[in-house]
Amino acid sequence: MFQQVDHIGLAVKDMDAALETLKKLGPVVVGELELIERDHLKAVMVKTGEVPIELIQPLGPESSVAKFIEKKGEGLHHIAYRVADIAASLKKCEAEGMRLIDVQPRVGYAECHCGFLHPKSTLGMLTELVQREPGKDQAPYAMPHEVK
Amino acid sequence: MFQQVDHIGLAVKDMDAALETLKKLGPVVVGELELIERDHLKAVMVKTGEVPIELIQPLGPESSVAKFIEKKGEGLHHIAYRVADIAASLKKCEAEGMRLIDVQPRVGYAECHCGFLHPKSTLGMLTELVQREPGKDQAPYAMPHEVK
Repeated sequence: MFQQVDHIGLAVKDMDAALETLKKLGPVVVGELELIERDHLKAVMVKTGEVPIELIQPLGPESSVAKFIEKKGEGLHHIAYRVADIAASLKKCEAEGMRLIDVQPRVGYAECHCGFLHPKSTLGMLTELVQREPGKDQAPYAMPHEVK
Repeated sequence: MFQQVDHIGLAVKDMDAALETLKKLGPVVVGELELIERDHLKAVMVKTGEVPIELIQPLGPESSVAKFIEKKGEGLHHIAYRVADIAASLKKCEAEGMRLIDVQPRVGYAECHCGFLHPKSTLGMLTELVQREPGKDQAPYAMPHEVK
């Protein structure tokens, strides 16, 4: 079902500081900054070498990412796998008895179609499945755009 | 510097139960089980689709992975990136002011040469750099071998 690692999600308190750190690792391409209002966070995709990292910073205490940072600290938040058909993949996971956070696909960063599996079903690893359309499937996915 | 995601490290309490869960996600190829004595853990690489996952299970409370699980629970433990030259990559990270756990490369799963960067320097994300030799660079890296 999984085709590749689409990106690694990293919970950070300060996106600008995080970007400075990532730049130490090598040249980065920074995607467009997006506000994900329903999750009370801002997100940006950063391509470090061949590895896309999604920096997510909570915008208030009601964000699940704020709760994550409070409980576990900054760091690895989720793994996203690319799939060809998000609706079929979610159905397949459900049929396997896995617990889904998103039963229906929703729209995520850079207009992807995505859904999360509950970490209770995935060994404690919050897992996102992502379908991207041709033309929007090359990291950093959204138009490169330096974050101010 | 980074070429690709080499694997994702997952801290688990029970490797057999974890393998059963991974098999729900699709066909898996299970590498050879290895004891990593210096870290008091056992490890096995599992290829799920195109994504290699290293299951690591502590063998006693002195393992840093046991401490990790106690503090944060089972789940994402580290990200490993493939590099062409591990010694040069570690030196480059050090020159960038990053904190290293391993100043010198050491031997890891499937006879790879690896080194860890301290999460304090990598946004809270425990990061491993891995160099693999040709012929040993295809997941699950060690000879496929079903874990008993």
